[in-house]
This record gives sequence, C-alpha cells and structure tokens, in this order.
Amino acid sequence: MNIGAHTFEEFKSLVAAFHGYPAPGVLLGGYMVEMARTALPPGVLFEVVAESAKCLPDAIQLLTPCSAGNNWMKVINLGRYALVMYDKYTGEGVRVYVDARRLEAWPELRAWLMKEKPKAEQNAENLLKEIEAAGDRVCGIQTIRIHSRFLEHAHMGEVGLCPVCGEGFPKNDGAICRGCQGGAPYDLIG
Amino acid sequence: MNIGAHTFEEFKSLVAAFHGYPAPGVLLGGYMVEMARTALPPGVLFEVVAESAKCLPDAIQLLTPCSAGNNWMKVINLGRYALVMYDKYTGEGVRVYVDARRLEAWPELRAWLMKEKPKAEQNAENLLKEIEAAGDRVCGIQTIRIHSRFLEHAHMGEVGLCPVCGEGFPKNDGAICRGCQGGAPYDLIG
Repeated sequence: MNIGAHTFEEFKSLVAAFHGYPAPGVLLGGYMVEMARTALPPGVLFEVVAESAKCLPDAIQLLTPCSAGNNWMKVINLGRYALVMYDKYTGEGVRVYVDARRLEAWPELRAWLMKEKPKAEQNAENLLKEIEAAGDRVCGIQTIRIHSRFLEHAHMGEVGLCPVCGEGFPKNDGAICRGCQGGAPYDLIG
Repeated sequence: MNIGAHTFEEFKSLVAAFHGYPAPGVLLGGYMVEMARTALPPGVLFEVVAESAKCLPDAIQLLTPCSAGNNWMKVINLGRYALVMYDKYTGEGVRVYVDARRLEAWPELRAWLMKEKPKAEQNAENLLKEIEAAGDRVCGIQTIRIHSRFLEHAHMGEVGLCPVCGEGFPKNDGAICRGCQGGAPYDLIG
C-alpha cells in the first residue's frame, strides 16, 4: 500500500536516509501520518503531537511540514504508538493509534509491537511485508480537541546575557540561565 | 562560507524544504553542527544534545544521522543557542555555542539573537548575509563529557495492553498507560 504520494520502497529509502535505517516503526508511522492527514479538511494548517518518542517523530517530520525545530511537531511521550494531528487555530483534529484488536491478522507485526519475541527470533523481512500489506488497517482513528494551551505559542520575552556563562538566554528563565542553574547534562572540561 | 559539503544556497534550500522556510536559526545552526563535527575524531559514532528547541534541532537532523525519532538527538531546553556532540560510547565531545563577545562585528545577527529590535525593523536579507559571512566565527567551542546516564539507552521492558484504553504501553509506566493517567493533552470527542 502506498504511503501518501510515495510507494513503500520510495518511503523506505527516505526513511533509511533520514533515520539511519528503514525502521519498522517509521514505516508504520508513515501510514499513520497519512491516515490522519486524509481525515483533516484539505488545506488546513495543522500541528502534530507524537505520543511516542520512538520512530514516530521521524515519520511525521518526513511527511509533513512539522518538525522538532519549527515546533509544529511536539513529542509528549505517553508510551502509546499514536499521534494527534489538529487544526492549529481551532485545535480540532484526529488521533490515529494502533488498534490492538486489529493486529490479530498480522502475527509478525503484533509480535514486534507487543515485544512477544526476542529480537533474534523476529523475522525482519516478514515484518516489513506485513507492515506494507496491512497499511493503515491496523489503525484506529478518533476525533479529538487539543487543549487550548497548545494553540498559543510561547513567547520568549527579552533576551539577556547570563552573568555566569556569558551566553544569551531568555530573562524569564531567572537571574542566571537554566544551564548554569544545574540543567546541563555534561561537565565542561576545557 | 560553505556548510559542510553544502554551499550556503544549497543548505538554504534544504532548510526551506524541511523546516518550512530558510530560518536564520537553522542556517546559523548548520555552521554550529559542522564546527562540532570537525572537532570530533573522524569516524566516531556520536550523539547530539540541542540546548534550544528553536531551529537548532533541524540543523542537527539535516546534517547528521541524529534525529528526534532515532533518539540520537535529544532536546534539553536550556534556553541557550548551543549544542553538545559526543562520542556515544565514551561520552567525550564538544560544545559549540554562540559567543556573545564575537557578535560585535555582526550587528544584524546580534540584534536578531539578542532580540534588540522588533521583527518589523529587522532586515532579513542583511541577517542572512551576515550569517553566511560570519559562519562559525561567532561561535565558541568547549570540551565536555556528557553525564553517564546519557550513555545508556533506556529499555522499554515488557509491553502490555492498557486496561482503560486497550492500547499497547510499557508496563513499567504503571497499571494504566500514561495517557489514561491524565497525560494526554486533548479531549476525545468521538
């Protein structure tokens, strides 16, 4: 089954180039993105929330204008393989999720998603074949309205120079920047 | 100044396609990514942390194998325009940041980064010209070691079906999934 304007093979190549390898999650995610987009009125300006940080963000970034860096895509890790796509002005949209009941017909896909077998026993070729054959038929779709705080974009406010590190930072973060407040996950060596 | 293997114009086109428009932050970010990469030993497998969620993640995703979906890129919003790139096994690497002292020679770039002028008074053309002319000369570089918890990848553990929504979720998240625990930022309408 095609993924939007791409054949499965074309999308596999795009995924390999962007994600490092043709990960099953990004391929399945491609069908999920297209299912959601098709359900929105044509031409609507949308944003997306990924409910998983694994793979799904890359399907969204490859197939929509939404990215981590333009903040039209957000990742809120709820541990579910699902995404919501919504009109950025009204907040109305859809949620596409993997419907566990629909996985019965696709044993390799189910075993992979539900982690039923150790990786060494999984058959990668059959898994990709099932993903392509199933397409969006393993997915369910719901109507949602995003909470209103997602409709406003945060403004950064004034920028100052941190008196500790000397770098620019949003003054709203406090007297010193968040890095110097202890948020940096590294030690400076030199 | 070229950005890695790309001319400035080529990279501008890549940025426009991925990010929606040739955002100054992604262009400056491109020089920062290449400065960091050049400082690491050739061939080292690296991961990246972006200290800003604005623009910089897209420069990283366009120029390295690291992405939001493969988790080789992480965004830890410290409010500083900086990134760390480190050997994924040893944690040793570099941090590239915008050095406020080096901005003096680039008034449009400084005004934009420090938000010294309202958007309407900024000159977008001059800003891009200054970014291209300055390249990585507005950046500083430091040696860092990432905290060791970043060297281990979290394992998801067993997957179960959430007794509330019926979807697959990591059992380590609790008796019900995080979405059903109240984490979902939307209301289900149908």
